[in-house]
Amino acid sequence: MQFEGAEKKAEIVIANDSFNLLTDLQQGFWQQLVDSAGASILSRMVNADCRAYILSESSLFVWRDRFIILTCGETNLAKAVEFFVTNQPLLTIASLTFQRKNEYFSEQQPSSFKQDIERLSRYIDGKHYIVGDLAQHHHQLLSYHDDRTHQTPQRYELLAFGISHQASDFFHQNNITQGDVLGYLGLTEALGGYTLDSHHFSPCGFSLNAINGEQYITLHITPQHAHSYVSLVSNSDIAKLSNTLLSRLNPLCFDVLTINSLDKSQQLPTFNDSVTKLNHQSVLIAENRLLTYVNLKQQ
Amino acid sequence: MQFEGAEKKAEIVIANDSFNLLTDLQQGFWQQLVDSAGASILSRMVNADCRAYILSESSLFVWRDRFIILTCGETNLAKAVEFFVTNQPLLTIASLTFQRKNEYFSEQQPSSFKQDIERLSRYIDGKHYIVGDLAQHHHQLLSYHDDRTHQTPQRYELLAFGISHQASDFFHQNNITQGDVLGYLGLTEALGGYTLDSHHFSPCGFSLNAINGEQYITLHITPQHAHSYVSLVSNSDIAKLSNTLLSRLNPLCFDVLTINSLDKSQQLPTFNDSVTKLNHQSVLIAENRLLTYVNLKQQ
Repeated sequence: MQFEGAEKKAEIVIANDSFNLLTDLQQGFWQQLVDSAGASILSRMVNADCRAYILSESSLFVWRDRFIILTCGETNLAKAVEFFVTNQPLLTIASLTFQRKNEYFSEQQPSSFKQDIERLSRYIDGKHYIVGDLAQHHHQLLSYHDDRTHQTPQRYELLAFGISHQASDFFHQNNITQGDVLGYLGLTEALGGYTLDSHHFSPCGFSLNAINGEQYITLHITPQHAHSYVSLVSNSDIAKLSNTLLSRLNPLCFDVLTINSLDKSQQLPTFNDSVTKLNHQSVLIAENRLLTYVNLKQQ
Repeated sequence: MQFEGAEKKAEIVIANDSFNLLTDLQQGFWQQLVDSAGASILSRMVNADCRAYILSESSLFVWRDRFIILTCGETNLAKAVEFFVTNQPLLTIASLTFQRKNEYFSEQQPSSFKQDIERLSRYIDGKHYIVGDLAQHHHQLLSYHDDRTHQTPQRYELLAFGISHQASDFFHQNNITQGDVLGYLGLTEALGGYTLDSHHFSPCGFSLNAINGEQYITLHITPQHAHSYVSLVSNSDIAKLSNTLLSRLNPLCFDVLTINSLDKSQQLPTFNDSVTKLNHQSVLIAENRLLTYVNLKQQ
């Protein structure tokens, strides 16, 4: 009954002068890309700007000039990036972020981050950073940025670890609907303008993709009592949503990570000291990115 | 003719309630501590606040409640920290910073940082961070802070890599004096109020300790043409001195690292874009420390 909820994430932007748009690539290409990581496509929704896929392990979003893929469990996401690079030699990569959270069950992963770096370095001359406490919560990043472009997408992440037993119990129910989940998390109103697609996993687990024009929000719930995990990732500012979610989930600790957040106050976020204790905070400026990271603990 | 200039650094503050002052400890204790790292004491100077030692590999400064030791070359500084902890069981450690720059010749080091962490973790429950690009310039830190105290010293570091051949040639001369070195580097006036102690190494290399009350400045020059290195470390703001030094040394790239700098503008230092290019910049807030780090490249 253990499952590695923490996602590996790869986000790639192609240069303006690229031959093809990513949305021109056939569905079969994305199927193969997802398959190369050891996952599969479960469902899809489309709007004028974006294609959103729910995967057997997390999510994939594709726009004209970029895509982001998140895969949890025992997947090998570096292989999906390798598949992209080797099968689309005419596309120029303007920006890459390959990111991996330290895992609960790292010995069960098909590759270490070091091995991922070795694989990706055959194709991409990126830089390698770590934010956080190496013995506890931390993120490893491989970042690449082509100096000729300024295309590094924004990203906002809330990652919650050890949600309350009450919340965990809620997500273990068999008969809950998408509406029940959003209601329980207090997200119904905030996602009002979004088109939604979700999947309940057996025996437990829940994934939701939400798109609205170019905006996406993706929510993944790993409710297992041992090492429960909830992630909310978006290209929009989810600070308000995050506060709501935290009040409902009451996790033992959580990460807030932003890339190129426009909200300057997010550079050094402040939280209510009486409720949360700051474990760690860092800001990283490199490769056309402003990355902020905090890890907070409930008191 | 290769020498590892980059220093390992350990800074320890003892709690107010400790039984002894560090300045009460006998000279023989510090000799043994330095010896346990694989270095030796070459000379000493003392004022009312501080004892300053020039070592065969860098420097040691001791105050009533704290000491900092820097050792370069192929020393094992973690062993010196272990010696301190095991031989002074009555002293309570309020704060520890153990820090190591990535080395040019890492395979020749007697220990890896991972091994250092393993050794120190037997005694100190610290946190482990990395700032910088893992494939290039970066610093690894083990930080510990006792929540009951607020004693984390300030530190300012300038580390310059690949100084100009002209500067390198200057420091290879046999007959230069301490005054010549300070004159060449433009430091004579800035060090006017300080008591100085220096050592010329054979065949090349120069170390200088400067103290003024509780303030210290330590300068170490590894002028070897391959992998030349100059470091300036202090508990005072050395921003102005650093600019002077950089203009004289014209290094290929340099690090500026501060710990608990009072100058808020140092949190995100700005440099002249036409002269230097920012490779990397990060801010880390953890363990009662505000650490800023930038790596800049001459254009």
